[in-house]
Amino acid sequence: MKIGILGATGAVGRQMLECIEERNMNVEEVRLFASPRSLGKTIPFKGQETPVEVVSQERLNGLDYVLGAVSNALSREYRPLIEKAGAVYVDNSSAFRMDPDIPLVVPEINGEDALGHHGIIANPNCSTIITMMALAPLARISKITKLVASTYQAVSGAGIEGQHELENQMVQIAEGKEVTHKVFRDQIACNVIAEIGSYNDNGFTTEEMKMQNEGRKILHMPEMKVDCTCVRVPVMRSHSISVQAVFEEKISVEQATAAIASFTGDVMCETDLPMPLYTSNQDLVYVGRIRPSLIEENGLVLWCCGDQVRKGAASNAVQIIEYLEAHR
Amino acid sequence: MKIGILGATGAVGRQMLECIEERNMNVEEVRLFASPRSLGKTIPFKGQETPVEVVSQERLNGLDYVLGAVSNALSREYRPLIEKAGAVYVDNSSAFRMDPDIPLVVPEINGEDALGHHGIIANPNCSTIITMMALAPLARISKITKLVASTYQAVSGAGIEGQHELENQMVQIAEGKEVTHKVFRDQIACNVIAEIGSYNDNGFTTEEMKMQNEGRKILHMPEMKVDCTCVRVPVMRSHSISVQAVFEEKISVEQATAAIASFTGDVMCETDLPMPLYTSNQDLVYVGRIRPSLIEENGLVLWCCGDQVRKGAASNAVQIIEYLEAHR
Repeated sequence: MKIGILGATGAVGRQMLECIEERNMNVEEVRLFASPRSLGKTIPFKGQETPVEVVSQERLNGLDYVLGAVSNALSREYRPLIEKAGAVYVDNSSAFRMDPDIPLVVPEINGEDALGHHGIIANPNCSTIITMMALAPLARISKITKLVASTYQAVSGAGIEGQHELENQMVQIAEGKEVTHKVFRDQIACNVIAEIGSYNDNGFTTEEMKMQNEGRKILHMPEMKVDCTCVRVPVMRSHSISVQAVFEEKISVEQATAAIASFTGDVMCETDLPMPLYTSNQDLVYVGRIRPSLIEENGLVLWCCGDQVRKGAASNAVQIIEYLEAHR
Repeated sequence: MKIGILGATGAVGRQMLECIEERNMNVEEVRLFASPRSLGKTIPFKGQETPVEVVSQERLNGLDYVLGAVSNALSREYRPLIEKAGAVYVDNSSAFRMDPDIPLVVPEINGEDALGHHGIIANPNCSTIITMMALAPLARISKITKLVASTYQAVSGAGIEGQHELENQMVQIAEGKEVTHKVFRDQIACNVIAEIGSYNDNGFTTEEMKMQNEGRKILHMPEMKVDCTCVRVPVMRSHSISVQAVFEEKISVEQATAAIASFTGDVMCETDLPMPLYTSNQDLVYVGRIRPSLIEENGLVLWCCGDQVRKGAASNAVQIIEYLEAHR
């Protein structure tokens, strides 16, 4: 198998490469692509320094898969080249996620959707993946009608620069210096910012609408209604989500607990509390605090955490390739 | 007016004293009470070093008001002494909040309830005060039936020690040292902890149930149903709350905006975003991101922030005294 990675020097791109290596995938060659300013850099893969290249039709030719960790604009630009090269494109941008002809896939939930692809598969939004991983086992018991979600999103959502900014600000605060910011709209250390993405006319942000729009597509529940508030918090890598979900039929805490515990990719915390500090650097989504809603007869309230860079992005994309390979 | 403060050396107690001074209240004498280990300490008030004393019947006698910033157990212990002294007790503990004979008061919302007191008035929970300050102007337009709230609570909720712990942990992280914790169940820097208070049988914590139970009493809406998730975040002093509220009748964003903008104690952020970093060290509650719910016909989604130590505790208690004095 030959795999290319677009945006290989970014947080998600590097994690994709690490995932390929640690999962011991049968990969003969990787080609790493980034912007011209990364030319000359190398990144280690299976003990070998692998050069970073600039995308070209020639260097895309011969690849079986391309993993994309670039902007929507670049993803749109590269897509025809990848298509021409005959590679399958697994794209982490949001450019194609809502295209009805393009599968949007979390392998544990709707892996079979990937099998009907026409050369491109979209990787969902990070908070949406983590929330849907928590809810999918429940959605298999009964359809979700309503979902109220508030997120606690890590700075890694803004890439390596986001993580550096939080680290720098903590040093600045510790040293009593002026706190500077560039990546986020305001200081994020000792702060929370309830604004991720740009605003839609309905007052929700683009990031918030992904929970409803992408969630519907992943769960095959086109009528699920979602009120989401996305909030950046000073946490490094794991997103957490506070959820109230309402189902067509009542699901008991015992049923929910058993369903999540037996769902591949989930860890059910019956007594432990999922915390973003401890759910990072792994692919599992941790679910806890399941309790019956005090408002809705058929509602459950819960809390979940998962690594934004891994399951929220890189690992999920790599798992899509694994799923395709396993179902050839 | 002679005012005593119980727990005068704590974060809330000190803030109560500062509020009395900065509001230029007509106070002839303050008496500051704390545990024996604070004996010998003095705290400045109106330019004079005021000694810290241990509570006694003798030293309570002659006071007009006592502000309480002590534990439930100590509050219960001191209450009969304060009663005997003939002082009005404004208590920030949760010991008496749900007693039907004891008013639970946010002056801007239900100040008139304070006038019927029998010697004691309870100060509500911090997150509840801030959320109800955001919702009260809307509740006056139409009754709230359902409320889903997720909190982003500052470390000051655990007192000065909570703030010191976050400060210390940021220094430890900045210096690459091992991170230690004592006040919170786990590291709070670069983490969020979805567990405040102890667990009730229904799976909600004591802190989470306050939003429903105290909210009902403050708003006079005994049937309001609330699903609340309380989460500690690495923020110093201001709590933030993500809210979905459903009303008996539809309230437009324009109506809501106008109602909040004209409500004493609230700041309506129409274009600005309320952030806990900037809403601290003041008594105002900031409300923003008001948008129509995508789920509930009569629902609104919003975001609010307010200083936990001030409006969430000390200032509200001092305002209760001001209200009583203004309505003598």
